Amino acid sequence: MSGCGAEKGLISIDEALALIQTKVKALAVEMLPLAKGLHRYLAKAVYSDVNLPSFSQSAVDGYAINSSLENLQDTVFDVVGEIKAGSGLNHQLADGQAMRIFTGGKIPERTTHVARQEIVVVESDSQIRLVEQLKPQADIRFTGEEVQAGQQLAEIGQKVNIGALAALSMAGVQALEVFREPKVAVVITGDEVAETAEDLHAGKVFDANGPLLKAWLQDYGIDVDILHIADEAEQVTQCFERLKQHYDVIITTGGVSVGDYDFVRPCAFETGFEQIFWKVKQKPGKPLFFAEYTAQHHHCYLLGLPGNPAAVYVCMQIYGKALLDALQNQRQSLAWFSGLLTHDLKSDARERFLRMHAYFEQGQLKLQSLAKQQSHMLSNLMQANCLVRIPANIKLEVGQEVSGVFIHN
Amino acid sequence: MSGCGAEKGLISIDEALALIQTKVKALAVEMLPLAKGLHRYLAKAVYSDVNLPSFSQSAVDGYAINSSLENLQDTVFDVVGEIKAGSGLNHQLADGQAMRIFTGGKIPERTTHVARQEIVVVESDSQIRLVEQLKPQADIRFTGEEVQAGQQLAEIGQKVNIGALAALSMAGVQALEVFREPKVAVVITGDEVAETAEDLHAGKVFDANGPLLKAWLQDYGIDVDILHIADEAEQVTQCFERLKQHYDVIITTGGVSVGDYDFVRPCAFETGFEQIFWKVKQKPGKPLFFAEYTAQHHHCYLLGLPGNPAAVYVCMQIYGKALLDALQNQRQSLAWFSGLLTHDLKSDARERFLRMHAYFEQGQLKLQSLAKQQSHMLSNLMQANCLVRIPANIKLEVGQEVSGVFIHN
Repeated sequence: MSGCGAEKGLISIDEALALIQTKVKALAVEMLPLAKGLHRYLAKAVYSDVNLPSFSQSAVDGYAINSSLENLQDTVFDVVGEIKAGSGLNHQLADGQAMRIFTGGKIPERTTHVARQEIVVVESDSQIRLVEQLKPQADIRFTGEEVQAGQQLAEIGQKVNIGALAALSMAGVQALEVFREPKVAVVITGDEVAETAEDLHAGKVFDANGPLLKAWLQDYGIDVDILHIADEAEQVTQCFERLKQHYDVIITTGGVSVGDYDFVRPCAFETGFEQIFWKVKQKPGKPLFFAEYTAQHHHCYLLGLPGNPAAVYVCMQIYGKALLDALQNQRQSLAWFSGLLTHDLKSDARERFLRMHAYFEQGQLKLQSLAKQQSHMLSNLMQANCLVRIPANIKLEVGQEVSGVFIHN
Repeated sequence: MSGCGAEKGLISIDEALALIQTKVKALAVEMLPLAKGLHRYLAKAVYSDVNLPSFSQSAVDGYAINSSLENLQDTVFDVVGEIKAGSGLNHQLADGQAMRIFTGGKIPERTTHVARQEIVVVESDSQIRLVEQLKPQADIRFTGEEVQAGQQLAEIGQKVNIGALAALSMAGVQALEVFREPKVAVVITGDEVAETAEDLHAGKVFDANGPLLKAWLQDYGIDVDILHIADEAEQVTQCFERLKQHYDVIITTGGVSVGDYDFVRPCAFETGFEQIFWKVKQKPGKPLFFAEYTAQHHHCYLLGLPGNPAAVYVCMQIYGKALLDALQNQRQSLAWFSGLLTHDLKSDARERFLRMHAYFEQGQLKLQSLAKQQSHMLSNLMQANCLVRIPANIKLEVGQEVSGVFIHN
């Protein structure tokens, strides 16, 4: 039975990530106006319809001139007009003529040079004199010198960040084919959530996981409501039954271990989910559960996070991001850096994600571990700016190289 | 006259940044529900009202036991009840008694040990036997071991990122005092904006600056409408007159140079703005203009960006971010890294921000410059992931250390 995978033993972090990156089917493609495309992934490469610049233009405020002379110093020109940026007329210069031109202005036909205003003396309303020698074609931006019509601007799979959006705007791109954004539901399981400080005396705790997941998804660009359900099999089953039809992803917290109240796995199986993996040899986040429900033309993925908030945080930064990106066909999105430890680290039987403070020193990235790494503790996230991967069963020494991801957001 | 600063000569990047960071007055403080505080800056430190954990609790699924024996291996206990996470009853154990307990469950009074379920054999409905020796107080999370009531959780000025928000949630923090978000208006000046490909033949260009600024501000968390106005003094003046009353920041593009159509500075002075600086010894972005309008209880800052899109991009990443952060009293927000050049670089008379591709190699950050750095070109933003600061008047060689900022967004 595919629902049962514990016997196979724990899988590694790399195996878990590879299963997410390869098993997850990409969502449908949609066409969006460019301005709505920020932070999406391109489903199709983008080619330019135009040359950039689209016409030869001045790079400075100055004068376009036409001269057949070799030496232009002290030459006088007749000023026959003015061209500003966005001016539509097509001008033409005869030998000995000049036109006042501003940055971005369209170069007149038969221009031989552009003289920036700093090397020009205005002799009268209609005459200028150059005070320096000038190289031909200096300070002209030529048609197509940045981009030729038909040239590729952006690759398939590329993320549309601010710079990409601006560059595509400059080429007049109006719309993009991107992958649809995942529809995500979040379910917090458990009876232990406190509403007020009084509830703490009754053995309850304030909920960090709901606010954490709402903020994390908001930052990713997805607005979610947080559902809370009790540790009761019937409620969990009904919830999954309803959500699996409408959502691409269900993220749960808690209830994925082997305790008597861990209903997420059995209820997932009850509602037709098939396990892709369960239990990863990592700290925090060992009980991580990943499953898929398949209907005609629809898949729903269940990412069952452990209940401890540090495990939720780490698993979202690593597996949550990998899952949401894979749904948009981006399967290599985690940006691993490499840095050097500032201290020794003890060995541990499981691979670990440690919250650390990274800083740059003389071109090197230094990594300083923080106290209070246990899975029920979050307070060191006030100082942490990265998660660092520490291999299992090895004692590391100061200066050794390890990899991690930044957590700026 | 304070409006005129060109004669003083160009200032350096550091001087310009220091003027923004010191001259800008912080906005008012507001109280927000914690969930609305993401990406804001704290106006007041946050202290914990509670201990974390708030009560001693089990770190595992297992049994809480009370035993006066030294050696617990093969000892049998009477199971007298069950405690799950969130269960409110106060239990007490007598010597030789055990209670089933789940992760997060409140430790009964007089508990001496917690035995994880892996080292327990269930002998009958009411009896268990330990199969291993057990250290006292293992697998117990003690009251206040992470945070003590009254302890500082977050510092004044700290940015509320996802991790901070989650950590504050866990301590039951309901509301935050943060600086108000700046109200920003964006004004694109110039007659050269093309609407269709036909307009390109008339010397116009597609607008990159409007979409760039809208996306940049959206990513920062501020929704803006983009205003377009022609290069006409009367229109620019009317626009500033209206906006200065209602906005904390006016960002303009174009019209800050010394061309005959550069109306931003004269119109700013006309409407009561005083110059803080004009012209920075940098490439791109030399004509950058910064001014302040002061009324009773209200300041409006004008950030006059050059018209070239690469200058707009670079100036927003550096000065735009510094300004919006300073308004929220965060005056050291640019996260400069240091990295090593992968190639030589020619000298230039101005300090430069070059768009580069940064990558990690054996704990070092390597910086590879990209082609097409001119200020009217943006296409290399498809590959760039950082802006690197190159000092003026110095030839740099491969392996030399330079600083920069990442541009992931």
